Amino acid sequence: MNKGEEEKKTMMKKLIPNKQIILNHYVTGYPKESDFGLRSSTTSCTLSHGSSSAVLLKNLYLSCDPYMRHRMSDHISHSGTIVQSTSGSVLVGYGVSKVIESTHPSFKEGDFVWGMIGWEEYTLITTPDSLNKINITDVPLSYYAGILGMPGIAAYAGFHKICYPKEGDCVYVSSASGGVGQLVGQFAKLMGCYVVVGSASTEEKVDLLKHKMGFDEAFNYKEEHDLGSALRRYFPQGIDIYFDNVGGHMLDEVILHMKVHGRIALCGMISQYNIEKPEGVRNMFSLIMKRIEMKGFVEKDFGHVYPELVELCIKYLQEGKLVYVEDIAQGLENAPSALVGIFYGCNVGKQVVCIAKE
Amino acid sequence: MNKGEEEKKTMMKKLIPNKQIILNHYVTGYPKESDFGLRSSTTSCTLSHGSSSAVLLKNLYLSCDPYMRHRMSDHISHSGTIVQSTSGSVLVGYGVSKVIESTHPSFKEGDFVWGMIGWEEYTLITTPDSLNKINITDVPLSYYAGILGMPGIAAYAGFHKICYPKEGDCVYVSSASGGVGQLVGQFAKLMGCYVVVGSASTEEKVDLLKHKMGFDEAFNYKEEHDLGSALRRYFPQGIDIYFDNVGGHMLDEVILHMKVHGRIALCGMISQYNIEKPEGVRNMFSLIMKRIEMKGFVEKDFGHVYPELVELCIKYLQEGKLVYVEDIAQGLENAPSALVGIFYGCNVGKQVVCIAKE
Repeated sequence: MNKGEEEKKTMMKKLIPNKQIILNHYVTGYPKESDFGLRSSTTSCTLSHGSSSAVLLKNLYLSCDPYMRHRMSDHISHSGTIVQSTSGSVLVGYGVSKVIESTHPSFKEGDFVWGMIGWEEYTLITTPDSLNKINITDVPLSYYAGILGMPGIAAYAGFHKICYPKEGDCVYVSSASGGVGQLVGQFAKLMGCYVVVGSASTEEKVDLLKHKMGFDEAFNYKEEHDLGSALRRYFPQGIDIYFDNVGGHMLDEVILHMKVHGRIALCGMISQYNIEKPEGVRNMFSLIMKRIEMKGFVEKDFGHVYPELVELCIKYLQEGKLVYVEDIAQGLENAPSALVGIFYGCNVGKQVVCIAKE
Repeated sequence: MNKGEEEKKTMMKKLIPNKQIILNHYVTGYPKESDFGLRSSTTSCTLSHGSSSAVLLKNLYLSCDPYMRHRMSDHISHSGTIVQSTSGSVLVGYGVSKVIESTHPSFKEGDFVWGMIGWEEYTLITTPDSLNKINITDVPLSYYAGILGMPGIAAYAGFHKICYPKEGDCVYVSSASGGVGQLVGQFAKLMGCYVVVGSASTEEKVDLLKHKMGFDEAFNYKEEHDLGSALRRYFPQGIDIYFDNVGGHMLDEVILHMKVHGRIALCGMISQYNIEKPEGVRNMFSLIMKRIEMKGFVEKDFGHVYPELVELCIKYLQEGKLVYVEDIAQGLENAPSALVGIFYGCNVGKQVVCIAKE
């Protein structure tokens, strides 16, 4: 066998079968399972030592996040923050993976990482600097798609760096049992906020909020005919901090219940992602009269808080002072339904998809 | 004459004829001159020495401000910040006055002050701590109803303390030739912002903005069929700071033209004050994607900046580095039309009413 044939054989060996979730077409309205497809492909994963640095990942957990909806639309990007998918391309999102091959000095075979990966069994990452290495502890690996990943940074930075919380503050969290919301409520309680109230879409979630996630109060917003009277009931003195995961009508109403000098962190607006024309927020004048600070943020800007988040959360998790509820779907083929489900509130806790154990 | 008759005579002497502007009835929609009345009254201005401290003012200048519209509605107050007028009561607003009698140790006859006064020839102030004493310089007294009064604080604090401006920032000001807007643009230029662009409702005002108030650019928003394309023209790279005096559709559109990490100071929403149902702001999701900070403020919270404002502005005014354009109506009887006019953009510069020279 001459050298050329040997190289060819090596390359052949590196063509790994790779199941992938693809976007069949751009999505209008609520996403449906039929918007996605499962493709059997192969990954050209030949890592060329000595040239560019790359990492081949075996993907373990996928994170289902509301922001992913924006990738699926044929829209002009709002600011370039969210990269659009093209029709027929593999879905991309945060996930947890194992390094199975690496030509990058920072990563070696067997390392665990989290970061942006494809919704597929294997992903070749040609810019591995975007990956975060995981130092294995006794917390589940899937947590790096949640509390110790992007949603954790969003909750931690959004609450501590955007809301300026202080002891005794009245805090309201919408979509409170989700991957971000459940953490915000717990962070608020850990620093002495009172009352901390969350809203969710089912009684099961309300029960979780009150009896597992440590919220002082919780309510099922779908059962409240008058959102305003619910907010008055839980916040007779008004709200200091609103952590908004929902937007639209909820945000509009909450503004009326804010205290003077209240803070609103805009984390997400899931109520608006699947509708053609966003709902207008009419109570803007109250932002003036109440001197409210409303701030949008994305977790990308807060990478620097990650070490303190990891240290704190692992400590609290081990001490039992913090819990993290996950809803784990099994198998890549079930990833589309898990993703679609979050827009209907089907998930109970942070929605993750397990595509391989290790 | 016995002692009782002498006292009665003294009290009689103190009943001063006092013309007043009253609110005839609560206002719906745009205010009209007929919503207001001129009442000939007398003021029971007997200052009882030794008991409570009070100050009797002869009023000189009245400030016409958009926020006054809220006093005229039969609404529940948004936060208690704005005291509602009752139907038939004397209008209240900021103004400049001369002390003609005082039992308060901080004020003496002949002092000039600014603060909240009635729209009338004489006002008896029973809580004189709310008044600001004027140290006479060579600037016009009327400026204490503008650049050196509440609008000055709103512009100075709103720009410097809410917008975090820095050299080179692109700044947009709506209602830019008004009592607050013209100052924001000039403050922005003084600290090296570029470009500084204002919008107004007539060519005359646009000309003032460009050739007197030092804005880099200005446009007549009424002549722009597509506000978005106007904003793109003046801010091809986007807007760092939007100082909003207008709200509604303008605010909604500007959000789309903000840069990442832009700041929006919500100072006023004059476009919304005379309509039944506020326009909805639909582009809220861009606040997240662009990490925009939007903050409402009222000048009341920034009394502490007043000394630095006065020092700076008087210096700049004397050096010719700052100008202040006023639109002065003459006579208390013309105050209602001046006030009504600001909601139609009739004023060119800060609208003031002169009711007495000294």
